[in-house]
Amino acid sequence: MRAQNRQAQQMREIEMIPDYIKHPEGSVLVTFGDTKVICSASVENRVPPFLRGKGTGWITAEYAMLPRATEQRNIRESSKGKVAGRTMEIQRLIGRALRSVVDLSAIGERTIWVDCDVIQADGGTRTAAITGAFTAVGLAVSRMLEAKKITENPLSGFLAAVSVGVNADGEVLLDLDYNEDSTADVDMNVVMQSGGKLVEVQGTGEEATFTRQELNEMLDLAEEGIETLFALQKETLGAFGEKLDAARKEETSNVT
Amino acid sequence: MRAQNRQAQQMREIEMIPDYIKHPEGSVLVTFGDTKVICSASVENRVPPFLRGKGTGWITAEYAMLPRATEQRNIRESSKGKVAGRTMEIQRLIGRALRSVVDLSAIGERTIWVDCDVIQADGGTRTAAITGAFTAVGLAVSRMLEAKKITENPLSGFLAAVSVGVNADGEVLLDLDYNEDSTADVDMNVVMQSGGKLVEVQGTGEEATFTRQELNEMLDLAEEGIETLFALQKETLGAFGEKLDAARKEETSNVT
Amino acid sequence: MRAQNRQAQQMREIEMIPDYIKHPEGSVLVTFGDTKVICSASVENRVPPFLRGKGTGWITAEYAMLPRATEQRNIRESSKGKVAGRTMEIQRLIGRALRSVVDLSAIGERTIWVDCDVIQADGGTRTAAITGAFTAVGLAVSRMLEAKKITENPLSGFLAAVSVGVNADGEVLLDLDYNEDSTADVDMNVVMQSGGKLVEVQGTGEEATFTRQELNEMLDLAEEGIETLFALQKETLGAFGEKLDAARKEETSNVT
Amino acid sequence: MRAQNRQAQQMREIEMIPDYIKHPEGSVLVTFGDTKVICSASVENRVPPFLRGKGTGWITAEYAMLPRATEQRNIRESSKGKVAGRTMEIQRLIGRALRSVVDLSAIGERTIWVDCDVIQADGGTRTAAITGAFTAVGLAVSRMLEAKKITENPLSGFLAAVSVGVNADGEVLLDLDYNEDSTADVDMNVVMQSGGKLVEVQGTGEEATFTRQELNEMLDLAEEGIETLFALQKETLGAFGEKLDAARKEETSNVT
Amino acid sequence: MRAQNRQAQQMREIEMIPDYIKHPEGSVLVTFGDTKVICSASVENRVPPFLRGKGTGWITAEYAMLPRATEQRNIRESSKGKVAGRTMEIQRLIGRALRSVVDLSAIGERTIWVDCDVIQADGGTRTAAITGAFTAVGLAVSRMLEAKKITENPLSGFLAAVSVGVNADGEVLLDLDYNEDSTADVDMNVVMQSGGKLVEVQGTGEEATFTRQELNEMLDLAEEGIETLFALQKETLGAFGEKLDAARKEETSNVT
Amino acid sequence: MRAQNRQAQQMREIEMIPDYIKHPEGSVLVTFGDTKVICSASVENRVPPFLRGKGTGWITAEYAMLPRATEQRNIRESSKGKVAGRTMEIQRLIGRALRSVVDLSAIGERTIWVDCDVIQADGGTRTAAITGAFTAVGLAVSRMLEAKKITENPLSGFLAAVSVGVNADGEVLLDLDYNEDSTADVDMNVVMQSGGKLVEVQGTGEEATFTRQELNEMLDLAEEGIETLFALQKETLGAFGEKLDAARKEETSNVT
Repeated sequence: MRAQNRQAQQMREIEMIPDYIKHPEGSVLVTFGDTKVICSASVENRVPPFLRGKGTGWITAEYAMLPRATEQRNIRESSKGKVAGRTMEIQRLIGRALRSVVDLSAIGERTIWVDCDVIQADGGTRTAAITGAFTAVGLAVSRMLEAKKITENPLSGFLAAVSVGVNADGEVLLDLDYNEDSTADVDMNVVMQSGGKLVEVQGTGEEATFTRQELNEMLDLAEEGIETLFALQKETLGAFGEKLDAARKEETSNVT
Repeated sequence: MRAQNRQAQQMREIEMIPDYIKHPEGSVLVTFGDTKVICSASVENRVPPFLRGKGTGWITAEYAMLPRATEQRNIRESSKGKVAGRTMEIQRLIGRALRSVVDLSAIGERTIWVDCDVIQADGGTRTAAITGAFTAVGLAVSRMLEAKKITENPLSGFLAAVSVGVNADGEVLLDLDYNEDSTADVDMNVVMQSGGKLVEVQGTGEEATFTRQELNEMLDLAEEGIETLFALQKETLGAFGEKLDAARKEETSNVT
Repeated sequence: MRAQNRQAQQMREIEMIPDYIKHPEGSVLVTFGDTKVICSASVENRVPPFLRGKGTGWITAEYAMLPRATEQRNIRESSKGKVAGRTMEIQRLIGRALRSVVDLSAIGERTIWVDCDVIQADGGTRTAAITGAFTAVGLAVSRMLEAKKITENPLSGFLAAVSVGVNADGEVLLDLDYNEDSTADVDMNVVMQSGGKLVEVQGTGEEATFTRQELNEMLDLAEEGIETLFALQKETLGAFGEKLDAARKEETSNVT
Repeated sequence: MRAQNRQAQQMREIEMIPDYIKHPEGSVLVTFGDTKVICSASVENRVPPFLRGKGTGWITAEYAMLPRATEQRNIRESSKGKVAGRTMEIQRLIGRALRSVVDLSAIGERTIWVDCDVIQADGGTRTAAITGAFTAVGLAVSRMLEAKKITENPLSGFLAAVSVGVNADGEVLLDLDYNEDSTADVDMNVVMQSGGKLVEVQGTGEEATFTRQELNEMLDLAEEGIETLFALQKETLGAFGEKLDAARKEETSNVT
Repeated sequence: MRAQNRQAQQMREIEMIPDYIKHPEGSVLVTFGDTKVICSASVENRVPPFLRGKGTGWITAEYAMLPRATEQRNIRESSKGKVAGRTMEIQRLIGRALRSVVDLSAIGERTIWVDCDVIQADGGTRTAAITGAFTAVGLAVSRMLEAKKITENPLSGFLAAVSVGVNADGEVLLDLDYNEDSTADVDMNVVMQSGGKLVEVQGTGEEATFTRQELNEMLDLAEEGIETLFALQKETLGAFGEKLDAARKEETSNVT
Repeated sequence: MRAQNRQAQQMREIEMIPDYIKHPEGSVLVTFGDTKVICSASVENRVPPFLRGKGTGWITAEYAMLPRATEQRNIRESSKGKVAGRTMEIQRLIGRALRSVVDLSAIGERTIWVDCDVIQADGGTRTAAITGAFTAVGLAVSRMLEAKKITENPLSGFLAAVSVGVNADGEVLLDLDYNEDSTADVDMNVVMQSGGKLVEVQGTGEEATFTRQELNEMLDLAEEGIETLFALQKETLGAFGEKLDAARKEETSNVT
């Protein structure tokens, strides 16, 4: 039995509070059960040196946890003077995922800094962070369009992520909480764009291995969960969310 | 005219949401107008090496800001690999202030780690942090008493802080917001315990100087503002707040 | 056309020179085409603090490149004073992969340090590193068994890795070289144990996305390539390789 | 009884040796009893990036102690690879204090680097450092005027600092030595400009609290002590000191 | 008796494999007995800031060891986050030695980065590194001449180094291996250019002292050993080596 | 012509002020012309981990310069967060030199920390530092003997160092000042013990090379200069200096 009587294929309660903090161009508090992440998108009118004068923009992401976001307090990375390997791995993942869905040439010579700060952790912080990061970028982009700073929508669809895993009984579970994650035999993070397009698949069995069949079951489940996230993103982005959804559907039907 | 028609001697809207995050022994979201700080108190059953075996505890504090807590995004201190001088100054101040009000021998061989993370900044983050830090410690202490982990209340009263300053027109202002702070001639942070006891007075006139009279006016104003904060702390701490207030008053009357 | 007229489903020339350097308990120079990695396994008679007194061992891995292993010289990480995110990601991957195939309780309170140093890079350094790392560990383990320092074989099979990808023409390729890797739309690293067991699957489409069908084609191709690597590992490990292969087959037939 | 039969309101023996080291534009060895600090002012013909092209200068300060300036040897900050919080706090204080007395627009696009290196410590190193730093800057400025590198005196008066405190018997003391400082209940550093203008007031009661009356008594005592320091600065600066004193007095009388 | 029946005045087996790795402009694997160092010379078309626009080039060197190049595994300097004093000392020595033999104005505004990576250590790594570094630079330079990127040979001769020492029996030894080095009373590194010109002499007697006579015997022996190294460098550099030798001899005879 | 009409074989004015700072067990301000170094010896009653329980002591040295000890201000190493290669090289040299003259088993399980802080630099800082470091150690040792903390003199003689060089005119010079050092073709530092015993010889010709004959001339000159330093050390150490000199002479005559 999962906590709160969840079914194996059921997401936790998901929530997105847009404009959670006032300074960023776009921000959201995203909640997956007890996991809470403040995601913000900051637009800066310049690009890193390697892109200067090329007429294209950049997106980069950072991820951190408050020291007591977790059961045990963690030492701050600023006090240790270095960023942990796990943190680097996650922020590289968030950045790559976002760059797959944003047409960088359409945002001009700007950098979008995405900050994902976990204020409370209960498993799945990286997938919540990706999902919230896209929403924050969506909010920032919709305002840049409104303010006519950019003229063309740079987003090719929605982007969200979820974790799936196999527990010790061989059961495939969606959206693992911390207890499930730490006892799972296999753990997989799936990032997708709307339209069923895979962006990242990271499956790991540290203490165990997994079969092709398990891989497929996990992917099926992830796909279902991610659809829920796309729906909430659409709603949170309001009118811009509607347009984004319509544009994507049209594009897909054109293809067919 | 101050923002929101505030009077010179008027605090911004103050709010405290206890138990804002679930893992810490005590936590609060403290709000001074648009300044929002998550304060948490984590109790650890050991002390730093220099205190081992001495039967006494320790309190230490850390302070940080989310990169986009401010108007302009700041680079993370973890990315820079070092903690800024300003941050160190503030966390040393918070720690010293808390140690003035906590009887460390009454908490046993435990460390209370206090984390103050500014999620939105609009001036006065260090004074909001001290005020919230005390509240988080109060919540943690009340639970340690309830759980009979400690038998005696280690707190000698309430502790809060506020900023005061002198603007370019020579007007003395209470609880400066960011705009006021960055244009003020003199800026002072006052930390007090209930009963009118001064803990820290830090007055600075970088571009200007100040007189003894201005110093006194600022202190008078700070004292008034801090009383408001004590009242809200008392309320937020519930039954424990009542007891703390009663104990302090009795002690004071005994003295008299 | 691939370099050296390679077929899409063809590995580069693979070579393993055992005992390439004399001090480590096990070492190998592994070559995938022009990619060359010195892998060494160092056995130390102690474990990290969190494992002391638990009767179990530990395996950890480090990865680095000589500054001029690449087309352009890279600044040394020791000069920069910090390890890059990419490096951390790779060494965490190598460590996890090795821990999936080694029974840590069977090596006693020992740490096996695995060092993978790329002396020449032409794509696929992380998969070559994992493949060589296992071989170096196999050599070290076989000597520990011979010297009766351990009594039971801690390895549950062979372990190897390969990269696969989809190029701009939608063609699925095995074992990408640097040119192919930098122009591929999708890049996937697959780590497997003998017996067709998946250990890690990391698929990424930074500039593009991929479908479930492409994912499956890539996995099919990876599985074929990895079989070649298992064969060479078996040969390089000599008598111990034979035994390992036999033990694994028996176990599998028992299961059936 | 204080060491050397000092009265509560008596400074230690104060000495300033100008031009103590030969390379800096201005330097002084300042002595407060057994506390000895080498202060030097280095003039550089450029400013930090944020000031370039604005026609204004900058002053910044650094503070350090020789490892064996103290009773117990301290590890060098260069060996530890980071500057301690206490050091940062002090150097920020020295810099702010100096900037309050120097008209930066009158020194042109130059940076004055002030280095305060404690070669022997016996309490009050930060106040000795501020007092010596001003003197070193005064020497450097007088030579810039003589050499006609600048045409206008950028200093608005003298600047000095002293510590005051309350001991366990409730006695208010001036210019605490190390023993007094480490047993005092309250410790306050006061920075003033000539003319009775307050620049910084930093009062702290870590183990104790203090009253408004004690604060006022400490400020009275500090003011007296600082007058002695102004007199010695005037003498040490020679003819330039005379002019600075005269200019300031005239300005004050104009005001009245 | 020395290992492998070596005579006191005999070098270990020396080998140089040119173009050992493919990317650098020049590279060599140099072997002194069991000491093996990969030396590479990377030519970059720019110079450090202090040389920009001066029409002259720069040579700098870095030195490192694989963690298990030695009997005991060493922690990576990148993991420690800082370069050890010994490493810095060696790379400064290699750089200085190379700059003594290269006419920097003849290589134009280019930097030659020399990397010496010890893959197996058995004493004398720094002298092997210098000897190999020169050879790698020689290969790079000969190609720059061939490609007419430079028109004039910037090398004034060959450059090599060897260690000499005095053992506990007072015997003077050439080219010490690790065992000899760690038990020697005196250890000296000698760097020479062809033509008997001394470049660096670094003699150390940590546990002992040495006499002028011992110094002279060591220098005599070093000179003999280095001649062997020059011969191998000449051979390794092929036609360019011949020319370099001829030019040097002519120059010398001109002098006479 | 040398500055102040010095002869080629003449030392600068040398001075040693013992007990220059009060806290260290031994300290001296050593002056070679305009080069001034505070050397202190701090005795600590413990040894580094690798020596614990072995009944022997340790000596280690650190070297630093005040930022404005030089013509141009240098950035502090603590601000840069790392110790420069030059600094490491020098402090390793000072430590090695001291360990050659101190019988570590005779000081018990103690560490002597030697700090050499250059307050004014004009060439030859490392040789002045070695010379002063020995004197500070001598003072500390004589007091440990007086206080009967140790019973046996651990020093085997005096220890001093001087620089010698060859200028552009081929003239061999003793004790180079900064101008001479920066224009010299060859620069050599010689460390000796009394009795003519060589401890370190470090000769370098970065822009030039040198001959065996020049090497010998430099050594002759260094030996003469160092005798002057021994005489001053003897005098500075007072009664202990006399005994040390007598003991050494006796030992030498015994040998003969």
